Amino acid sequence: MKSSLYFLRIAFITGILFHSLINVQAQDPAVKPEQKHVKYVFLFIGDGMGLAQVNLTEGYQAALEGKIGFEHLNFTKFPQVGLASTYANNKLITCSAAAGTALATGYKTNIGRIGMDPAGEAPYESIATKAKKAGFKVGIVTSVSIDHATPAVFYAHQPHRDMFFDIGRELPKSNFDFFAGGGFLDPDSVINGVNLNLVQLAKDSGYQVVNSRAAFEKLMPGSGKALVLSPHVVTEASLPFYIDMNPDDITLSDYTAKAIQMLDNDKGFFVMVEGGKIDWAGHINDAATLVQEVKAFDEAIARAIEFYQKHPDETLIIVTADHETGGLALGNRETKYESNLELLKYQKSSEEAMIAIVDDFRAKKTADTIAEFNRMLKALENDLGLNSRLHETLLDSAELITLKRLFIKSVYSINTERGIYGNNEPFISEAVTIMNKKAGISWGSSAHTAINVPVYSIGPGSESFSGYIDNTDIPKNIGKLMGIQE
Amino acid sequence: MKSSLYFLRIAFITGILFHSLINVQAQDPAVKPEQKHVKYVFLFIGDGMGLAQVNLTEGYQAALEGKIGFEHLNFTKFPQVGLASTYANNKLITCSAAAGTALATGYKTNIGRIGMDPAGEAPYESIATKAKKAGFKVGIVTSVSIDHATPAVFYAHQPHRDMFFDIGRELPKSNFDFFAGGGFLDPDSVINGVNLNLVQLAKDSGYQVVNSRAAFEKLMPGSGKALVLSPHVVTEASLPFYIDMNPDDITLSDYTAKAIQMLDNDKGFFVMVEGGKIDWAGHINDAATLVQEVKAFDEAIARAIEFYQKHPDETLIIVTADHETGGLALGNRETKYESNLELLKYQKSSEEAMIAIVDDFRAKKTADTIAEFNRMLKALENDLGLNSRLHETLLDSAELITLKRLFIKSVYSINTERGIYGNNEPFISEAVTIMNKKAGISWGSSAHTAINVPVYSIGPGSESFSGYIDNTDIPKNIGKLMGIQE
Repeated sequence: MKSSLYFLRIAFITGILFHSLINVQAQDPAVKPEQKHVKYVFLFIGDGMGLAQVNLTEGYQAALEGKIGFEHLNFTKFPQVGLASTYANNKLITCSAAAGTALATGYKTNIGRIGMDPAGEAPYESIATKAKKAGFKVGIVTSVSIDHATPAVFYAHQPHRDMFFDIGRELPKSNFDFFAGGGFLDPDSVINGVNLNLVQLAKDSGYQVVNSRAAFEKLMPGSGKALVLSPHVVTEASLPFYIDMNPDDITLSDYTAKAIQMLDNDKGFFVMVEGGKIDWAGHINDAATLVQEVKAFDEAIARAIEFYQKHPDETLIIVTADHETGGLALGNRETKYESNLELLKYQKSSEEAMIAIVDDFRAKKTADTIAEFNRMLKALENDLGLNSRLHETLLDSAELITLKRLFIKSVYSINTERGIYGNNEPFISEAVTIMNKKAGISWGSSAHTAINVPVYSIGPGSESFSGYIDNTDIPKNIGKLMGIQE
Repeated sequence: MKSSLYFLRIAFITGILFHSLINVQAQDPAVKPEQKHVKYVFLFIGDGMGLAQVNLTEGYQAALEGKIGFEHLNFTKFPQVGLASTYANNKLITCSAAAGTALATGYKTNIGRIGMDPAGEAPYESIATKAKKAGFKVGIVTSVSIDHATPAVFYAHQPHRDMFFDIGRELPKSNFDFFAGGGFLDPDSVINGVNLNLVQLAKDSGYQVVNSRAAFEKLMPGSGKALVLSPHVVTEASLPFYIDMNPDDITLSDYTAKAIQMLDNDKGFFVMVEGGKIDWAGHINDAATLVQEVKAFDEAIARAIEFYQKHPDETLIIVTADHETGGLALGNRETKYESNLELLKYQKSSEEAMIAIVDDFRAKKTADTIAEFNRMLKALENDLGLNSRLHETLLDSAELITLKRLFIKSVYSINTERGIYGNNEPFISEAVTIMNKKAGISWGSSAHTAINVPVYSIGPGSESFSGYIDNTDIPKNIGKLMGIQE
């Protein structure tokens, strides 16, 4: 107390001189970051990217370099780390809609709601909408369909995430400056006898709609609001998994670079970038595909870091997740203390793309099931690295019996069971599970889990995203730092 | 740059006045904490306490209060959060010896080493030893045997964690002021034809050895160095699991309170407190026992917080883990998005203690296996909450078949399979696994995993334990903050 009083007395005596000192301090972002307003904000949401997903990718990167441990990603080098709780208003294990609403609006809501209250009656305003109203440019970028839960919560208000047409119809009403994603899941509808198409509605509202690589590259600032839809979409109007992409496919990193180019202006911007298929790889428990999705997400973040390096005092980058997906563990009951993460490199395509192998066998199968199964084992060795003496991934007898049973069922039976999220195919799924096990990892669920998600951040005010926070704190703190929320 | 020069110019002009201002700032621990030396340091190590273990306990606490979400523990309210990598020098998935050595000495080593280099040849000095040399009092507290890996790395140097006698022989040589734990795992040995006993060796070195509740309560500062061994030890000379404790058992919280009482002095202290059986509950995948161990650990931390509140400018508390155990997920493949963590409250004792139920059935069994199995189901309903209509935990037919098969094997066969860490018993283990599943959680391993562990901290300098760090950074930063390491 004595020190404080002394300090105040000196302050009083020195008057103007002291005032100058305070002003100098206020300009130092490390001293009072909350008193400055950040101009450029990047919110990266790795859908389903829990701590285990981050660490798996880091461990895989290290293994590729012949090291034991973790090789940091771009975003895991950020100075601030937080942990965020993710639970929904009505359930401990959240969904992307409720968690997204929390991340976009600062309010907990019920499972399935898109930017609305738990009852699905009143809308919540998102940080993106607030930023737009305050004169910032706004961009929404995703690797899945542009009407999927995570992008939707930033511009739409619907009682359920599956109301894709209604969500898409709200997109142009947002007047946001830049959208980029896969496609629309439900682009056409008849309302009061009128045929409506979401792409046309966007055009009617002044959006330039881009749907080719050439047009994407030509897209320049000054040409107005833009909606980029991917020329190459797969399941549920999403970009292909990174592991399955062609060299000329537009990546999330390309989208992010374009967003920066389109949004950069003196009044600042807010952009949300979702790595949406990290979650999908988690749902199908496909580790090799997952690490490539995290790497693609990290590459997109690298674009933001390049921008940050030019404007370090005005740029805030936050990287987090809506929830963890898959109950991923960097250990396995059978491999115990052993790991061989490097094995994931032998998988050439996603589990989803590998279904084509099964379809090919179904189409060309002979009656000789043993010969066919042996031929399939060769395919698995080639495309997955499984059952290879060289890679020390030989199947044991129990694994062989399981795979053979599922092979007969998948290739020779009339009906096949296929799930959601990347058309889970039982035989391929089991082969990938065995390979994941041999790499020394395991999955506890094909759904989400309730564990805290990590929050990595850099830039002025990033301290407010450190410590143990709730997902609703994130947009609130962003709003305060941008000077658009009390 | 202009601002900085202006600042310097003013500083130069104002001379003494400015000097006073700087001094006032230096006394504020939030401004330059690393320039002050902390006097009292608590390092709490939750063995096997990954983020999932913390969150499960928080989710369970909330569920008990009828809330959806997480109820913060004492230590999860700390302002600083970090994530620490845990990998060993020679393996991605570490063990308590290698991870403990990292946490105690700041060096990575190989699996199994106790305070020694990877080759097991050269000793590393621990932060506890450095603190003792610098004049701080030092305490080592654990809920497992006092020669177990985590306590051992702070005072011993042995090439392998299983060299219990040699480890125990180093205990009195440390000259540390206070030890409290279960017992010694290998107290007697014959060296060069001489019978040696570790308790006697400690006494010969001037330690007061306490082994009763009454003597423990009478133990007072000023009575010299003390070694407290628990009057009630179970498996491997450890304290009973908290869930199994009698009302008069000495708890980890009691040990911590006594450590503070014994160590408190003007020159300061360093104390390490291990919640050792969080790991053991993880190895046997026993969630109800685990949450009670985390709660017991949190209660011990509450004692440190009480001390912190009296000396907030001089006390640093760090809570972390050596590694995660069990690949715990707050979700389950079968229950998907549903959780019912509250169900864990019906389990009356640890999985280990429940083995007595099986032993009782083995001893008294009749030839009527169906009647016996039905009687066992009643016991499971009573002691575990399983197969209860009231709790909505009825067994489905697949679960019944599995349990019945294991029941016959466990109760009627001559040989039973039992593992390490709390004598895993297949029938009881399966019953607990089913109950954990019904609560909405799952386990991927019975070993450790490689995921980052959380680091929660409070006190001057705690910022240096935030962000993404390595386990070796923890003792280095403690040393710097205590002023005993460069």
